[in-house]
Amino acid sequence: MSEGVRVVALGGGHGLHASLSALRRVTTDLTAVVTVADDGGSSGRLRRELGVLPPGDLRMALAALCGDDEWGQTWSRVVQHRFHGEGDLQGHAVGNLLIVALWELLDDPVKALEWVGRLLGAHGRVLPMASVPLDIQAEVELDGAVTTVRGQVACALTPGRVRAISLVPSDPPVSPEAVRAIHEADWVVFGPGSWFTSVLPHLKVPELARALATTTARRLVILNLAPQPGETDGFSPENHLEVLRDHAPTLLVDAVVADRGVVPEPGELEKAVVALGGRLVLADVGASDGSPRHDAPRLAAVLDEIFREKR
Amino acid sequence: MSEGVRVVALGGGHGLHASLSALRRVTTDLTAVVTVADDGGSSGRLRRELGVLPPGDLRMALAALCGDDEWGQTWSRVVQHRFHGEGDLQGHAVGNLLIVALWELLDDPVKALEWVGRLLGAHGRVLPMASVPLDIQAEVELDGAVTTVRGQVACALTPGRVRAISLVPSDPPVSPEAVRAIHEADWVVFGPGSWFTSVLPHLKVPELARALATTTARRLVILNLAPQPGETDGFSPENHLEVLRDHAPTLLVDAVVADRGVVPEPGELEKAVVALGGRLVLADVGASDGSPRHDAPRLAAVLDEIFREKR
Repeated sequence: MSEGVRVVALGGGHGLHASLSALRRVTTDLTAVVTVADDGGSSGRLRRELGVLPPGDLRMALAALCGDDEWGQTWSRVVQHRFHGEGDLQGHAVGNLLIVALWELLDDPVKALEWVGRLLGAHGRVLPMASVPLDIQAEVELDGAVTTVRGQVACALTPGRVRAISLVPSDPPVSPEAVRAIHEADWVVFGPGSWFTSVLPHLKVPELARALATTTARRLVILNLAPQPGETDGFSPENHLEVLRDHAPTLLVDAVVADRGVVPEPGELEKAVVALGGRLVLADVGASDGSPRHDAPRLAAVLDEIFREKR
Repeated sequence: MSEGVRVVALGGGHGLHASLSALRRVTTDLTAVVTVADDGGSSGRLRRELGVLPPGDLRMALAALCGDDEWGQTWSRVVQHRFHGEGDLQGHAVGNLLIVALWELLDDPVKALEWVGRLLGAHGRVLPMASVPLDIQAEVELDGAVTTVRGQVACALTPGRVRAISLVPSDPPVSPEAVRAIHEADWVVFGPGSWFTSVLPHLKVPELARALATTTARRLVILNLAPQPGETDGFSPENHLEVLRDHAPTLLVDAVVADRGVVPEPGELEKAVVALGGRLVLADVGASDGSPRHDAPRLAAVLDEIFREKR
């Protein structure tokens, strides 16, 4: 374990769950800065009903930070559990309700998340990307025509290829804790995850983008194991880096982790990584059953090695 | 503290909250056996929607068992918190949702409550009175006519005087843990609380009634500080003991605690207590602001003294 390494992981959803599940094995100083742009499902309902930040991505990050002991595994299952039945509660994730309750009670999103983290015995801290709910706006190209789509659900469902995203509001307030964490980090980790709706949004929050550009932290990108239907259909690994560059033209990257099996001929990817100022790390980080998800211990071992080299 | 004293508290709602708030200061071996007959509010909705035990009285008992430190006080507030707004969640208590989620996940009501207790750092254990949801059925007398009313809400709202209650189903299954706790207790505590809907129901569960009749534990009754509108209008303290006797004719009682201010002339009450085989303990156990609720430290001091004497 690279115990003292200060790591900030950016993202949302299952992708961030994967990076955090690995990172909590690597460092004891871990902060997740999480998208708050979801408008679907349980999160969307809570956001509309109560005017709060959508809690779902934050909940999933907290679940990923739960330990492997009985306590951690039980509470992880509890917060991820969704109510059955067909009534008012149907589909709500328990952790979403718990987070929202603490927001109502404490009226301080960051402090409330800290309490939930303490409850779960979370191995790290979870912060929202912004202090207000965000909407993602996507430029989608279909048959040569470009349309603008608003909302995470709409972005995921609209046919066509996403070209770029922006945020509404375009300059949201950010918690000082998130900015400070980025400035004080040794490493900032982007991805894996839904590229346009979970990984890139952070770069479109001006205050976070400034912190990410000026921090002395090194920057690491974990590439996805497969294109995501509806968002990155047909995207090659290097395409992912190209849109990253489109959204943050001056951002340099120190390392890019890709699965060896996904990149049989790494020539083009290598070029794209070098263009960003970094080096490509190819390793076996996918699940052993061949499904397109990261294996936490494998990814942890690779990240640990990278963090040690660069200290 | 009478550390080693094994105490079982019976009841529900605010009354049980009061006895547990005192008892957790007196003993480290505390079990609450809680009514599961509520059909109103958040509990009623969950019961109807999901077919589970009504969790509200269990939640309130768990909240009462939270410690006085920051952890206990924060989580006590969280589980008691009710959602605002006007949507699906409005009025649901957070703790109810947490309990129900664990029931869905673990499929074992007793084990699930144990997990919630561990989460809160509860100073004691909370068990349901029965393993199935119950309905209270009350005989209500109004203008000389007796009608039967079913459901806790209906019992509370129907005008007239409650004469007796029964349960539907009349012989519900009981968790073995509850029966064992009663048998192994040094003291069993009845009340305070809604006399007909929280204190007496336990005596109408045949398996619990048998355990309460045959246990070697001593039995203590904590009387209410005021009659309860709709349930015990016009009841004197001794009336409370009379209906207790009506519902469990052979039950003997070792001690009855009443507030000195509520019983200026204890003659009749004294007689009623002696008729049950016990002694009357008069003390200042009400809140210092004069409101009809028990003061936890004062009640604790009185109970501690009684438990010590009888060891």
